[in-house]
Amino acid sequence: MKLSNIERKIIENSIRDIKDFPKPGIVFKDITTLLNNKEAYGVLMNHLYQRYKEYNLDFIAGIDARGFIFGAALAQMLGIGFVPIRKKGKLPYTTISEKYSLEYGVDEVEVHIDAFSGIENARVLLIDDLIATGGTANAAATLVKQAGAQCIEACFIIGLSFLDGIKSLESKTAVYSLIEVE
Amino acid sequence: MKLSNIERKIIENSIRDIKDFPKPGIVFKDITTLLNNKEAYGVLMNHLYQRYKEYNLDFIAGIDARGFIFGAALAQMLGIGFVPIRKKGKLPYTTISEKYSLEYGVDEVEVHIDAFSGIENARVLLIDDLIATGGTANAAATLVKQAGAQCIEACFIIGLSFLDGIKSLESKTAVYSLIEVE
Repeated sequence: MKLSNIERKIIENSIRDIKDFPKPGIVFKDITTLLNNKEAYGVLMNHLYQRYKEYNLDFIAGIDARGFIFGAALAQMLGIGFVPIRKKGKLPYTTISEKYSLEYGVDEVEVHIDAFSGIENARVLLIDDLIATGGTANAAATLVKQAGAQCIEACFIIGLSFLDGIKSLESKTAVYSLIEVE
Repeated sequence: MKLSNIERKIIENSIRDIKDFPKPGIVFKDITTLLNNKEAYGVLMNHLYQRYKEYNLDFIAGIDARGFIFGAALAQMLGIGFVPIRKKGKLPYTTISEKYSLEYGVDEVEVHIDAFSGIENARVLLIDDLIATGGTANAAATLVKQAGAQCIEACFIIGLSFLDGIKSLESKTAVYSLIEVE
């Protein structure tokens, strides 16, 4: 199920463009104006629920930190568990971790080694607010597999399709982005 | 409305104690085992919904980053907006910020200046996973007021009542913690 044109309009209109954040030349997609708008937030979450209720998911895995917002709300609606994928050093128990390249340097994400335990080959939806170059999402999808689960789909509220993050991630998992920015 | 004994048991049993994290002598309350347990997560969110559905809230404000998880899910259930209170430098638009003391040094939280706009004297529930010394929560409650809203209550899944965070916060707002650790 895809967004209707009316849903898309409501969601798009609620996202704010911030020029030159975090640095000159970048237009940042500010989703706080979507979240504090109860109509837009409701339309978005209802769409995600309608799409994913037939996927027989076992867990939603949300990427630190904006992915926690959409992921935890969707997990609650679907009546399933939520798993945080965090930046290095935040998770207290034994973790598995995965490095990825940034424009300058390297970053790392982690998941608890027993995050998806109890269900064999658990069906997981990965979620974040936005996919750009896809470094974090690729690393997170790898972690889901390494932790013994299946990444059924990766979902993003916004996909920057002028970067090739979606394409690179599609070699690992199905990808769904609600709003594509060209 | 308070937790029933059965609800309390289910939630308490799903929280994992991790010794010596993030440093020796500290017992860290790991809520990831609550979140990935669909029964416990469901019981928790249902309790929060039952408690807060009569509060006529306009927004939930969640504290970066674990407060996003419970806060965004509760906002969705109540059909209201969600506002993230973030660590310094993460929010892209104009912010107001508030410093607070740590054991060694100072930290700072921020909220968008227009986070609660559109509703005069908006009724806000502040939420985080845990209150210890209360530095972040006190700063966050101050920010809610400075942004023109009312902090109706501050809610924590776990309250460390051997520290005096709850007491210090009670001078600013009502406080509710589900599980008290003595």
